[in-house]
Amino acid sequence: MRAVRLSAVNRLEIAEVPAPVPAGGEVVVTLRAAALNHRDVWIKAGQYAGLKWPCIPGSDGAGVVTSGEAGWLGREVIINPGFNWGADEHRQGTDFTILGLPMEGTLAEQVVVPQIQLASKPAHLSWEEAAALPLAGLTAYRALMTRAKLQPGERVLISGIGGGVALMALQFALAQGAEAWVTSGSADKIAQAVELGARGGFDYTLPYWSKTASPDQFNVIVDGAGGPGFEALIDLAAPGGRIVNYGATRGNPPGFTMRKVFWRQLTILGSTMGSPADWAAMVAFVERHRIKPVVSEVFPLAQAAEAFALMERGGQFGKIVVRM
Amino acid sequence: MRAVRLSAVNRLEIAEVPAPVPAGGEVVVTLRAAALNHRDVWIKAGQYAGLKWPCIPGSDGAGVVTSGEAGWLGREVIINPGFNWGADEHRQGTDFTILGLPMEGTLAEQVVVPQIQLASKPAHLSWEEAAALPLAGLTAYRALMTRAKLQPGERVLISGIGGGVALMALQFALAQGAEAWVTSGSADKIAQAVELGARGGFDYTLPYWSKTASPDQFNVIVDGAGGPGFEALIDLAAPGGRIVNYGATRGNPPGFTMRKVFWRQLTILGSTMGSPADWAAMVAFVERHRIKPVVSEVFPLAQAAEAFALMERGGQFGKIVVRM
Repeated sequence: MRAVRLSAVNRLEIAEVPAPVPAGGEVVVTLRAAALNHRDVWIKAGQYAGLKWPCIPGSDGAGVVTSGEAGWLGREVIINPGFNWGADEHRQGTDFTILGLPMEGTLAEQVVVPQIQLASKPAHLSWEEAAALPLAGLTAYRALMTRAKLQPGERVLISGIGGGVALMALQFALAQGAEAWVTSGSADKIAQAVELGARGGFDYTLPYWSKTASPDQFNVIVDGAGGPGFEALIDLAAPGGRIVNYGATRGNPPGFTMRKVFWRQLTILGSTMGSPADWAAMVAFVERHRIKPVVSEVFPLAQAAEAFALMERGGQFGKIVVRM
Repeated sequence: MRAVRLSAVNRLEIAEVPAPVPAGGEVVVTLRAAALNHRDVWIKAGQYAGLKWPCIPGSDGAGVVTSGEAGWLGREVIINPGFNWGADEHRQGTDFTILGLPMEGTLAEQVVVPQIQLASKPAHLSWEEAAALPLAGLTAYRALMTRAKLQPGERVLISGIGGGVALMALQFALAQGAEAWVTSGSADKIAQAVELGARGGFDYTLPYWSKTASPDQFNVIVDGAGGPGFEALIDLAAPGGRIVNYGATRGNPPGFTMRKVFWRQLTILGSTMGSPADWAAMVAFVERHRIKPVVSEVFPLAQAAEAFALMERGGQFGKIVVRM
């Protein structure tokens, strides 16, 4: 089969590799589409724990089961990219791994996964949309719903709109009946978010941007950036509010103003990926509200290098999908 | 009546002042004992928002109702030091104030407070113990129980043992059936905490003290210090654990390692004082478990300056009480 193969730092090729063989409890999914995540870019750049070369990256995939136990044969599926969460809903166990390293990933014509990772592809989604859902949807759902417990009528701020998790969080927040606002460094992306239903947005590249917003106004803030901008998010949180963070693409905050946190009774929630229960709840929520993940661009497998380059530039609004 | 009067930065005197007069809904409590908090020291040093001179400090008091509406007359009471919390359990409202600034406080022979601030003095407590309870008990209860929701059998770490809130948190944690550990800069204080029931303690003045503890071991961490030591607390939190912070006596942490928080699914809970519901639950918990606040030293009102000096040195183990 053909697959994206990473054989050294920033060495990406489309290679012919042996088709994967399922073991007990496993199935072969013949993929129709896969999607990229920041994780894939970091793996390509050699900046991820547990690297090994060569490897096939890719955590997101949708396709048809073509080998394995009878119950799933021929069914259209999406794949839960989080493996071996463990028994504790509060946190992943030490055996937790993510599809696409160390296990061979979805940027290939076929992938082998344990049958328990499968869910039926939501019928209202195209293959591209279905492939765009798993990792971003799971991460956004746990952050916003399981961890921050967003309630209807609350005001939510989502930083860095345009990224896959941020956009899923926006769509989930709107479906939950919240009033959603966004931040971005791009006026275009803010405008696109408003078209999706956001009430408005803030350009965080403007000096003192957070002063133009009223302080103390957001019940829930969803952030995947961290970095120097995190302090402004603390200022914008309503007293008693929750800030949920699922990443630090801008690095660590250079400080932490404790008094703002304790005096204003804030809660800061770390979150990453999600449990099998989060996964099941997310897929059901997407089906119930007929949510369609935003797909920014679709590339054929042969042009996977261009898909990676687009994500490296940060030019996308939504998920970058690879079609098999 | 006689009272501690602060008339300028670090100017403390025992003065004869007019006895307070109750308005509608208010009572006069003739105090038998009062207790100090860090807040009083900061007010004396001129380091507190909303300062006014002269003022009578003191948030903690226990005594007998000697004037006001009939229902409370003659009863032995303690005083909830948090006024006007408001309707939202998640956070205090903008009208929230603490007894002892701007309202005249308890370091006096009498104090006037709204009747709704009163609770019956728990029968198992001496006057000194009763005066030691309110502010520290309320703060510790909200932090440990309402916010961190400590469960029986969990492992809890309490930083800076010896302070009033930390000691109440230790006693509450033990009553809740948790396994409690402490930190201190003093081996003596750790030994005293172990006598109270702590399993053990760590001297945070030792370099790399937190490396001598196993990482990832505490389900709940209670901290009122912040500062450079906060990072070590993050390392000691179990994945999925909660760190509740109620103060920053050591200043702000100089950084914030976001990845440790999101990847390990930590929750950081800011907490301060407590609601009327927290107050009622705390008093009931203290009565049910017959908890006696630790009193470090008792001074007569005439020696209130020495009581402040002891707190300024940080030499206490438990509450510093002033007897009227």
